Amino acid sequence: MMSTLEINAAFYRGDKSFKVEKTTVSAPKAGEVAVRIAYCGICGTDMHVFHGNMDARVGLNRIVGHEMSGVVESIGEGVSGFNVGENVVVRPLDHCGECPACAAGHEHICHKLKFLGLDTDGAMQEIWNVPAHTLHALPADLRLDHAALIEPVAVACHDVRRSALKEGEDVVVIGGGPIGVLVAMAARDAGGNVVISEVNPNRLAIAEKLGFATVNPKDADLVEAVMSRTGGKGADVVFEVSGTQPGVDAMTAVAASRARIVMVAIHATKPQIDMFQFFWRELELLGARVYEPVDYDKAIEIIASGGVDAETVITNISPLSDIQAAFEALDGSATAMKSLIKVGA
Amino acid sequence: MMSTLEINAAFYRGDKSFKVEKTTVSAPKAGEVAVRIAYCGICGTDMHVFHGNMDARVGLNRIVGHEMSGVVESIGEGVSGFNVGENVVVRPLDHCGECPACAAGHEHICHKLKFLGLDTDGAMQEIWNVPAHTLHALPADLRLDHAALIEPVAVACHDVRRSALKEGEDVVVIGGGPIGVLVAMAARDAGGNVVISEVNPNRLAIAEKLGFATVNPKDADLVEAVMSRTGGKGADVVFEVSGTQPGVDAMTAVAASRARIVMVAIHATKPQIDMFQFFWRELELLGARVYEPVDYDKAIEIIASGGVDAETVITNISPLSDIQAAFEALDGSATAMKSLIKVGA
Repeated sequence: MMSTLEINAAFYRGDKSFKVEKTTVSAPKAGEVAVRIAYCGICGTDMHVFHGNMDARVGLNRIVGHEMSGVVESIGEGVSGFNVGENVVVRPLDHCGECPACAAGHEHICHKLKFLGLDTDGAMQEIWNVPAHTLHALPADLRLDHAALIEPVAVACHDVRRSALKEGEDVVVIGGGPIGVLVAMAARDAGGNVVISEVNPNRLAIAEKLGFATVNPKDADLVEAVMSRTGGKGADVVFEVSGTQPGVDAMTAVAASRARIVMVAIHATKPQIDMFQFFWRELELLGARVYEPVDYDKAIEIIASGGVDAETVITNISPLSDIQAAFEALDGSATAMKSLIKVGA
Repeated sequence: MMSTLEINAAFYRGDKSFKVEKTTVSAPKAGEVAVRIAYCGICGTDMHVFHGNMDARVGLNRIVGHEMSGVVESIGEGVSGFNVGENVVVRPLDHCGECPACAAGHEHICHKLKFLGLDTDGAMQEIWNVPAHTLHALPADLRLDHAALIEPVAVACHDVRRSALKEGEDVVVIGGGPIGVLVAMAARDAGGNVVISEVNPNRLAIAEKLGFATVNPKDADLVEAVMSRTGGKGADVVFEVSGTQPGVDAMTAVAASRARIVMVAIHATKPQIDMFQFFWRELELLGARVYEPVDYDKAIEIIASGGVDAETVITNISPLSDIQAAFEALDGSATAMKSLIKVGA
């Protein structure tokens, strides 16, 4: 049984800076598991932290990171179902169990949800103590660098599950960044005929390398392209991942009658939405946030089966000691998709 | 068998005018049924015609009217399942059978949908020939004045069905006009705990007379009122019937986590919608247009069982000869709900 250990951790200290320092970690408490972190991806949210947009939430001494993979190091009292040495990922959500959302069984949108790695310290440290209920065991042969994609792929799986996508349906993904391509891969895995709409030529090139049909709406008429592909029907399922007004204009314009539109993007301001089309074609709009356990199960299955091309999606891996340079390189990069930090030795 | 007959009909002639004139009607063609019209309600859409807003669609020699009840007068070749003398209503939708919406089984939102009484002549005439597939038979003891409410109640039933409302759920109806109160009654019939939000004191008085809890958002904080009624949960189902920006602001603000919001109103311009709340609470927005056969079945059942207080909803009945005065009186009335025209003798 581990007692207090000295470890390396990366602290966000404000002003676009991370400092890697020694710190100590205690043995896991009752109900907790200590995970030795292997890899941790840099999420768009972590980049928001880097930019200082979330200082009020995270403070100036926070260990961020939640897109992780690791190995069970030690196990707290009262925890069963996990073994030391087992490969795991963390579903970084801790719910209150008492609010109306929890009471209705929607713990992932708990009114007092704690997001591990933002509202608590996260995975950019060598050992991370987490509530046992957040763990998912991995197949022993699943590579731990690839496993660091499970969290963002689980987001995509949740989005696709919200859409109730059926085999053979026509899908448009509006926005081909890191989340957009993962949504597109999860939708393809579910049997969808996917087109990605994206304006950035580098992202278009990656989407095409991943085998997707693409449209650049700056060069071509997206609605015409979708109607032509679908015999005038339109898309059965649309994912709005762009977070832009042209994106929400497109989402209703490309939609088939009774289409389901999933709102993946976070719109900070209120966009104008074509409510007439919602009425006229009986469209459906579904908000989607994080994931539920079943989405993690599906994400593990997709990564394990090669349904996500991890080698193309992971464009950089840096050691924890280089976290500052890794954030700086990713910031505004035209070609990067997913950067991982190798946290363990 | 009827041959050509002379009948009275009301023609829309533009410039806020209806003229009642003699015209002739032929025997029903193959596949048609001739219906002797008893009553026909004045719809908000008919009022738009009266105001000249739909001249391009209806022309200047149109017989309007679609909220009707009547009696089978004669039956065309090849029609079975109906008997002369039977009481009926018409579901005034004629679909193409070939477009992608029809192919997917959504004939009521056919891409080339003809709405009888707008795209064709309607029920403000003594005898109306209609496709047999549009007819629903009525219980013999259902009053024909009350039966003229079946069409707008079917709209409400479709809205409620789209919401998947379950017994005991909390419901907010935003907008307490003629459609809003019918939606509220259909939601109450389905077991919902309904609150109506409305700013017009006359409409509030009618809503209260119909037994509904009400909030005037000009006098009280609607969100606070809904949260207080629901223990901080919010409304499980919201119907946006106001067609206003404050209405769409309220629809997301009062919604519980995973609430279903049905877009009943027709928004001519694109309102600003709080997409962040859709993401945060995983809300669902459902467009709803007209009705399907099962909604007519339900509306007939509700009217027959007294689930809609027809005596309170019907605020005026005028003979066909007074149609001009009836439209003028209804136009901008602060107290009127539903005006009927008694078309038959």
